[in-house]
Amino acid sequence: MNLIVLFDEDFVADDRVVLLGRRAEHVRAVHRAKVGESLTVGIADGKTGRGEVLRIDDDELELRVELDRDPPPPLPVTLILALPRPKVLNRVIASATSLGVKRMFLINAWRVEKSYWSTPRLAPDNIRTQAILGLEQARDTRLPSIETRRLFRPFVEDELPAIATGTRALLAHPGAASECPRALSEAVTLAIGPEGGFIEAEVASLQRVGFEPVSLGPRVLRVETAVAALLARLF
Amino acid sequence: MNLIVLFDEDFVADDRVVLLGRRAEHVRAVHRAKVGESLTVGIADGKTGRGEVLRIDDDELELRVELDRDPPPPLPVTLILALPRPKVLNRVIASATSLGVKRMFLINAWRVEKSYWSTPRLAPDNIRTQAILGLEQARDTRLPSIETRRLFRPFVEDELPAIATGTRALLAHPGAASECPRALSEAVTLAIGPEGGFIEAEVASLQRVGFEPVSLGPRVLRVETAVAALLARLF
Repeated sequence: MNLIVLFDEDFVADDRVVLLGRRAEHVRAVHRAKVGESLTVGIADGKTGRGEVLRIDDDELELRVELDRDPPPPLPVTLILALPRPKVLNRVIASATSLGVKRMFLINAWRVEKSYWSTPRLAPDNIRTQAILGLEQARDTRLPSIETRRLFRPFVEDELPAIATGTRALLAHPGAASECPRALSEAVTLAIGPEGGFIEAEVASLQRVGFEPVSLGPRVLRVETAVAALLARLF
Repeated sequence: MNLIVLFDEDFVADDRVVLLGRRAEHVRAVHRAKVGESLTVGIADGKTGRGEVLRIDDDELELRVELDRDPPPPLPVTLILALPRPKVLNRVIASATSLGVKRMFLINAWRVEKSYWSTPRLAPDNIRTQAILGLEQARDTRLPSIETRRLFRPFVEDELPAIATGTRALLAHPGAASECPRALSEAVTLAIGPEGGFIEAEVASLQRVGFEPVSLGPRVLRVETAVAALLARLF
């Protein structure tokens, strides 16, 4: 936790917050902060700054906060990600959020196992928690929007064209003839398939709405590695 | 498992292997391969190719193999990584290996907790297994060399200058004034600190032997995300 994300309900006065639960416990057990010390804090979707520890006891942490800095700039990207295995879903959300992704769609695809859609990790509360962990890691405050779409074709045909309008639409596809471009200054809509990749009919659907298949080379990467590698290369 | 790594001891004839255990089980349970089907295989530190299933039963998998292709090119990088938490060690080794790292040193640093050095995950057998998982993911065959160094200063002062000779020596350091360079064609020695970063004295030691601090920006990333992001950007 490199930054504590604060919410409106944490405030007990204009410049004071009282934290309970996970955040207070983390500051006590990991930061081992003492009264008078200063921690990096930020308000959800707002400024970052410092929080001076006024009181720390078994249950509660009270801070006096001063919020005067902007969070790091977001990445100009919308991520369209075939729903990964439950085991990696949390990590992918936290990692993509830490990299600055602010809009993400978790979608179905032929090679997404049906059982993945029944994981409790897809509960909005869990998704939000993982996103907050990513913000805390990267000292960011702006919560991403993360939505799910269980039907591939209606999403790609009816929604995706509008989502991708005005952006460079790229499909990460191992074996694609074009290399993934580097250091773009334009906004990107980036689609990443499931383990084993999108099937040819899905690639064709994405190409019909303007997605250009690109590759990082002959290596097939795990989704969490691929997300970080693609975003680092694109921006 | 996008490629099955074969070892000399698997061969029962010049062009036939018999696999037991994890690899046979994975092919049966996940690939659900049948007799006559063809799988991607490669011999450790050698060529890749195809393996035709001759026989598959409860315990064993027999393949006729033809090895005629080169594995993907390695990344020209030596990774100097402060030993990460045991929880992420396996993932970092598999992920770095999948990205093409062939030489890695896991080193001590001030902010590496002492307890990390007693994890059973540092056993050579486990490190090798994680590296093989990374090769299987990326369809590679060349095993990386992964060594540990428990003393920071002797390593940095006595060994690292020779390791870094003839390479661009970079130190990933959040807050560094220089941006991490992109798309290098030269070889790199890349040092990555622990959670919380190298302390200033360690940064100074690395700078004295020629390491240049570079940053990916204001976001602090988890080690597994940082490794993928840095390597994708550098090469």
